This record gives sequence, structure tokens and C-alpha cells, in this order.
Amino acid sequence: MPTTDSDEAGGWLRLSLIPGLGHVTLRQLLAEFGAPEKVLAARHPELRNFVSADLATAIADGGNGDAATLALAWMGEPGNHIVTLGDADYPQLLLQTADPPPLLYVKGRHELLNRPALAIVGSRNASAQGTESAAEFAQTLSAAGITIISGLALGIDAAAHRGGLQGAGSSIALVGTGLDVVYPARNRALAHELAVNGALVSEFPLGTPPLANNFPRRNRLISGMSLGCLVVEAALQSGSLITARFANEQGREVFALPGSIHSPLAKGCHALIKQGAKLVDDANDILEELKVTIRPAPRFDAPALDADQSQLLNHLGYEPCNLDTLCTRAGLGAAAAAGLLLKLELLGLVENLPGGRYQRVR
Amino acid sequence: MPTTDSDEAGGWLRLSLIPGLGHVTLRQLLAEFGAPEKVLAARHPELRNFVSADLATAIADGGNGDAATLALAWMGEPGNHIVTLGDADYPQLLLQTADPPPLLYVKGRHELLNRPALAIVGSRNASAQGTESAAEFAQTLSAAGITIISGLALGIDAAAHRGGLQGAGSSIALVGTGLDVVYPARNRALAHELAVNGALVSEFPLGTPPLANNFPRRNRLISGMSLGCLVVEAALQSGSLITARFANEQGREVFALPGSIHSPLAKGCHALIKQGAKLVDDANDILEELKVTIRPAPRFDAPALDADQSQLLNHLGYEPCNLDTLCTRAGLGAAAAAGLLLKLELLGLVENLPGGRYQRVR
Repeated sequence: MPTTDSDEAGGWLRLSLIPGLGHVTLRQLLAEFGAPEKVLAARHPELRNFVSADLATAIADGGNGDAATLALAWMGEPGNHIVTLGDADYPQLLLQTADPPPLLYVKGRHELLNRPALAIVGSRNASAQGTESAAEFAQTLSAAGITIISGLALGIDAAAHRGGLQGAGSSIALVGTGLDVVYPARNRALAHELAVNGALVSEFPLGTPPLANNFPRRNRLISGMSLGCLVVEAALQSGSLITARFANEQGREVFALPGSIHSPLAKGCHALIKQGAKLVDDANDILEELKVTIRPAPRFDAPALDADQSQLLNHLGYEPCNLDTLCTRAGLGAAAAAGLLLKLELLGLVENLPGGRYQRVR
Repeated sequence: MPTTDSDEAGGWLRLSLIPGLGHVTLRQLLAEFGAPEKVLAARHPELRNFVSADLATAIADGGNGDAATLALAWMGEPGNHIVTLGDADYPQLLLQTADPPPLLYVKGRHELLNRPALAIVGSRNASAQGTESAAEFAQTLSAAGITIISGLALGIDAAAHRGGLQGAGSSIALVGTGLDVVYPARNRALAHELAVNGALVSEFPLGTPPLANNFPRRNRLISGMSLGCLVVEAALQSGSLITARFANEQGREVFALPGSIHSPLAKGCHALIKQGAKLVDDANDILEELKVTIRPAPRFDAPALDADQSQLLNHLGYEPCNLDTLCTRAGLGAAAAAGLLLKLELLGLVENLPGGRYQRVR
């Protein structure tokens, strides 16, 4: 099972949404009791061996059922997924870090989560040359099969995502809010494109607004899911340097782009290089260092679709789905839906699976 | 005796001017026989144990008397010195290298030869920003008591000498010709100032013209007399990288200034940093590394700008940009932009580069 289905997800969600139950304790409980449902079924005295009385009560009461129900409804919408520590799709690199979140909310192509990836981060107030460099590096690396991970901020982040989306590696945004919140609003169109052709990922529950404390916490996932981290234009004492520090602590390569000694936005990069980050002035420097054997990227040219085809594709999503469910979602009759599905299948966008189910494959 | 007097110098000169008698053999003969006069007084059969029959004949004949006489006359002029391996003034750092020349011709302040020194080298075709950086670093380091060593070439070398001459550390030019030849001619005034307030040094006999082979040989003295070598703007496969390689082989620190990833003159510096040279974007980086104690440099106080000036400056950035591109970025007409640029240039914030391009420099 690559991602979690609704039955399993319920337990994970109820547990993860209990206020005050941290990742470390949650992993400890899972190690002790097994699956989330077993933790939730445990008796209060058993739980008290591991958690406070209040937490034991909250868990024994079944966790946060309402929020879990809302999240399950969200998960039922096309393209939305919950990926838990127990799933094959959970980012394997993240498991090597100190504090992998028990559960990730994913919107878009969950199969990207385990592709070789590079984080590209930098200033929100980037120069024209900086955003251009970020986009160029991202595009070249994505064309070589590397998935570009960033934080959906303005400036360097957005340019990196746009560049990444141009290539086969595509791009993943690790966001610091719930996935039903788009922040910053100016990146709404980019977020939409990532949801279709790349992915948006968050560890934060739906509805979580942009909170200052969550962004550094999010940054450790940006580096944690990546083989390395490239910093393009960063002032001293900026968030990008925090991400680079996490990358270093997680044993990932840190790369930095140099610039004029008079540019304040090069100072952060220069400081990183002085501390041991690798100077790069060419995307090949990174490919050589990562020694990634690149599958040269069968580039997929998306065919032009009419409105009906496009809508049906969005309703279908990347998970197997039977015809009835799809017709309900799309508000179509069976004959109309089957006709559209056949065309999409011929375009290489949809597969007809055994048992009469369909799945979007691109 | 800090430098050699005429009596002693005669022997050194006669020996050093014998064609075909290399440094290694000369040092071997000195080790065997003692002072140069004793080598010259040795009998042919004794010399034959160490050198060819022709060389033994040349030595036993008393060496090159005419050239030595001319050099002694030169040495008699004010400010001129011969410094030999036997002198206290001989650069001690040079003695630690593989092949110290037996004798140096020095014009100017010979007491500078044993000051803590830094080599600053770089492209002859440097950018305005590059020469400015070279001069600024040289001036700051010289003010801190470091003597600036370079090769009297156009571009970075000349700027480094000029900056060095501004401070207490002053500057030394290691030249690839005889000291009675000024090369390149455009640096005649600079050479004159170095002869008075700094020093000119050569291992080549008087009258030696600029020969291509002598310049790399000279480069090993530039690094050999220095605690470290700073490379400011260098193309790949340039002479500056040869000097940096010598510095590395001689166990000296190599420093390099970063620049735009799009500038060919930054490529050499970036290559050095990738190979382990220390990136520096501030003269204090070098002082810290060399562990020399230093006075702080006067700070540049940014002038107050109006909104239009400030905006244009931000659009310009620290990389060269032509007027059309800038007008597009800033949404301004050419006349308005040119007017603002002129004001910014007068404030010392912008430079007008060859080819109608502009660049922010502070």
C-alpha cells in the first residue's frame, strides 16, 4: 500500500491531532502497542506508563475525532493523500532524520516523495539575477531527474519551483501551513500547478495558519527530504541559513552560489562556503557531487485536453478509483465517463486496472 | 651585514652570471667550498667533481667579470642593493622554498623583504570592480602592517601595488625582467613610486628583457616571499592560478575573492575555492587567517538617497547591466534612467563600465 487508505488513516489522524502528544512520544507508543488503532484501544493504566494522565485520558477517549473526520473528508478529494510512517511512500530520507513527523499531508503526485531530490532555498527579496539563477539551476537539475524541493516562499523558492516544474524531476513544496491554506497568497497559481504536476506537502493539520514558529520546523523537512541543499542568495541570519544548518546536521551536502563581495545577499552564501559548504557555479558541480545516476528523464509532454477531459482527470486523481465513484465525483453518466476515460487512456494519462478500476498515471 | 657590500657582491655576481650554472649546483658548490670567492679560487680538477668541464673552465676563469662590473656599478647607485643567500636581509620565507635564487636585485626599501607579506594577484584585464577590490584589500591589509607583493602587471597587480603603497606595510613588486627594464611601460610611474616608497625585486640579471618563460618562474617568488596569496579575478588557465598553485605547493594559504557565476573572471577564483582555497569577502578574513593583529578600516557611510535613486539602485544590482535592460526592469525611459545613474555615479555607488553597461559597486 503506497499511501494510507481511509480506514487506516483514521487512527493515524486521531492520534496525530491530539494536542500535546509529540512525535517522539507518539513513535514510542506505536513501538509499544503496534498500529495506531491499538494505541487508541489501550487502557488508561497501560498508557500511563508512557504519558501524563491528561494525555492518557485524551488517547483513551479516542483522540480528536472531529478534526480527524474533517481530514478524512479532505483526503477523499482527488489528489489528496495522507502518508504515514508506515507507508512505503513515506520519504525514506526523512526516516534517517532525528524527528520524522508521523504523518504527512500530501496534495499532488505522492510518488515524487521518494525521488532523488535537492532543496533549493534563498531570499524572499532576491535580485533579478538570483531568481534567474535559481530557476536555471532547478530546470537543469530537474531535467536530469532531480526533484526540486523548496518552501513556496516568494523570490528564490518560487523560482526554484518554477524551474523544477519544467523538467522530469518536477518539484515539491514543503509548506508551513495546513494544505488548505495557501501562503503567501501571491503564489496561489504556483501552488495550483504544484498540486497538479508536482506536490505540496505539510506536516501541519488542515487549517493551520502561517505561524512564525512553524517555518523553521518546516525547514528541517525541506533539508530532510533532500540529498543536499543549495542556497541561492541569502542574507546573513536568514531562514535559508537555518535550512542549510539542518542539512549539515542531517549529514546532507550543502551547496552555495557565490556572488559579488559587495552584495548583502551574497554574504550568507559566502559565510556558508567559509564554514565548509561547497561553492557551485555550475549545475554539473551538484550532479557530480551527488553522484546520482540519472535516469535521463523521459520528458512527458502533456497533451492538450478539452475542459471535460481535464475535469475528469482531476476528479480521478492518482489513486485507483472505480467507475461509479468517479461518476459521482464528476457528476457524469457512466457512458459519458467511459468515453472520456478511453480517450485519456489513449493519451497515456489514465490506466484501466483489473477489477474495473481506473487510475491517473501522469 | 643586512645587504652585501661591493667586495662580497663581486663574487656572488660573477658566479651567478655564469651561463648554465643553475641554482642547485651553485648552492652545492657554496656548501662545498664556502664563500663565492673560494669557489672562484678552486682548481679545475676540484670543480670537475661537481660540474661539467665547460662549467669548471668558466668558473676557474673567474666567471663573468664584465657583467659583474656593470652590476656593481648599478649597485653603487642610490637605492640599489644586491641581497644574497648569505645576507640577513634575504627573505627568510624564500629559504623555505625548493629553489631560492642565490641572489636578488633590489631597488628601494630592502628592509621590507622580511615583513609579513601577502601576495595579491589577478587578471591583467580586470573589471573596474576587480581593480577596486584589489586596491581596497591591499590598502586595508597594508594599513594593518602587511606588505603587499605582486607582479607589476596591469590590472589587479597594479591596483594591489597602489593600494599597498597607501599603508604602512607598503608594497613590493617581483618583476620578470632585469631591474633596469620597466615592463610594462605603462607602469613606469608606479615602478618609480615603488622604487622610492616600496621595493622592486628581481632574480634576473640586469638587461633581461621580458621573456615568456621567466614569468612563471618569477611567480614562484611572489608566493614564496608571502604568507599567503589572494587571487582577485582570474580566468581559468591564467598566470594567477599558477601563482596560486605555487603558493599551495609551498604550504602558503591561498585566498580567493568570489564573484558572479556569470563572470568569466570569477571562474578561476571559483575553481580555486572548489580545490580548497579560502573564500574571502572581507580583508579581515585574511588577517584572522594569518593571525596578524590589526586596526579596523574606516567604514563607508552610505549617502541618503531619494526613492527614485534607491529603486533604480535595487533594480541595477551588483552585476553589470546595460541601459535597456535596466530601463525595462525599472519601468523608466532611457533619459530618466541615465540622469539617475549619473547622480548615483557621482555618489560613488554606481560605475559606468565599457560597452555602455552599469554596475552597482556599493
